[in-house]
Amino acid sequence: MSAWTESVRSVKGVILDMCGVLYDSGEGGGVPIEGSVEAVKRLKASDLQLRFCTNETQATREKFVAKLCRMGFEINVSEVFPPAPAVVSVLKQRNLRPHLLVHDDVVPEFDGVDKSNPNCVVIGDAADNFSYENMNAAFRVLIGLEKPVLFSMGRGRYYKETDGLKLDVGVYMKALEYACDVEAEVVGKPAPMFFQTVLNDMGLQPHEVFMIGDDLVNDVGGAQQCGMKGLQVRTGKYRPSDERHPTVTADGYVDNLAAAVDAILKHRCP
Amino acid sequence: MSAWTESVRSVKGVILDMCGVLYDSGEGGGVPIEGSVEAVKRLKASDLQLRFCTNETQATREKFVAKLCRMGFEINVSEVFPPAPAVVSVLKQRNLRPHLLVHDDVVPEFDGVDKSNPNCVVIGDAADNFSYENMNAAFRVLIGLEKPVLFSMGRGRYYKETDGLKLDVGVYMKALEYACDVEAEVVGKPAPMFFQTVLNDMGLQPHEVFMIGDDLVNDVGGAQQCGMKGLQVRTGKYRPSDERHPTVTADGYVDNLAAAVDAILKHRCP
Repeated sequence: MSAWTESVRSVKGVILDMCGVLYDSGEGGGVPIEGSVEAVKRLKASDLQLRFCTNETQATREKFVAKLCRMGFEINVSEVFPPAPAVVSVLKQRNLRPHLLVHDDVVPEFDGVDKSNPNCVVIGDAADNFSYENMNAAFRVLIGLEKPVLFSMGRGRYYKETDGLKLDVGVYMKALEYACDVEAEVVGKPAPMFFQTVLNDMGLQPHEVFMIGDDLVNDVGGAQQCGMKGLQVRTGKYRPSDERHPTVTADGYVDNLAAAVDAILKHRCP
Repeated sequence: MSAWTESVRSVKGVILDMCGVLYDSGEGGGVPIEGSVEAVKRLKASDLQLRFCTNETQATREKFVAKLCRMGFEINVSEVFPPAPAVVSVLKQRNLRPHLLVHDDVVPEFDGVDKSNPNCVVIGDAADNFSYENMNAAFRVLIGLEKPVLFSMGRGRYYKETDGLKLDVGVYMKALEYACDVEAEVVGKPAPMFFQTVLNDMGLQPHEVFMIGDDLVNDVGGAQQCGMKGLQVRTGKYRPSDERHPTVTADGYVDNLAAAVDAILKHRCP
């Protein structure tokens, strides 16, 4: 075991990324990653605080959690932090009316939001909804505004489904940023405010918390910038080249969530 | 008339952008911009050299010129410089086998090119072919290469069709650049090499040539970086804010091509 296990001693909470850590997504909702169901159980049985922080925007929080429960995970809606509810709260604070370019299944999260005569654009991982036609529609709203406002639910490059790598919302965020010469406001990982919301809910200081994810930049790097420790699992979108990334170095690399939980429970001082 | 007419005295050649200067594109191929057919005729009747430089990648050069002829323009294939033939020549020089993400109608330009087991990606203004599925396919080719090579036929942000503004290839170039952490090689305006090919064909020095376009950055700015003068027409994708652009200032702004040709033919010293 490498040096990161030293810093496990004082850990009081763990934040888990979901896709690529708990399960691989794909047709039919995806499949659990070996050992992850049991690993979550063991964390819950410990006195560590546990939260889930995801950039998942292809479903409402309720449907998403229900899917994970069907896979065998014991997770409550209140423990899960996705971007959509966070965006809704920003929209309401700032009196903004969004044009949505999102997955059909996440639209209900925006039910209570006025979408008439839009004065901003919200994009999420819209998958097949990222058609040329829909991209043009979002672009026309933005370019028609005196000061274009674009919210992106995450800035990921790609993720892994059972049938291969797929482009994530960050790619289309960059596309619209370039088209309109604007910088998007990211709601989701790696935005510090997003991680902070989770820490607040846990009532813990950053140095007391480990973030575990498969995305080196958005999970690990984002958490580190908030003062947390970041572990990368070698599942999901992990690629060997991540371990020689020019700017982000994880505090530790582990084969999968089960191995991470083994090490944490073994080395922490209760 | 503003100061640019002074520099017209020594002009020996004119390069015209096409879409937004000669015609507005749209359903059925588009419509000529008022006065442009006559303006091209007048340039041809003068002793000025005339070439057409376009980032058009939605048709073969032959079909594209045929469309313009149907609109009434007298243009020969040999006078028109689009990106696709230029890319084909680069691919052959470097023994590259492309995966194409382009408009169906430009595919025949790549007939003589080996596309098996691709080791690079070429994108053009693919319009509706910019689906999520096709973007993923191009992405997977790139991310599977040890050193991804991406060619983009132009880097425009958007263009105007009769039914509104549409996203151009540059937007999807930025998307794939971000996805794969790679910088695209641009073939087309504003790449200096692309303009230089046209100048070579004319046998003229840059300071002897005026470029006229509706795209401030790609037509006007690109030409200026090569040492030419650049005029922006207030047609096509022109927006009033172009006249206070932070980095590019045209040598002159004219209402349309007809007005530009009037001024050039009036002020030049034959």
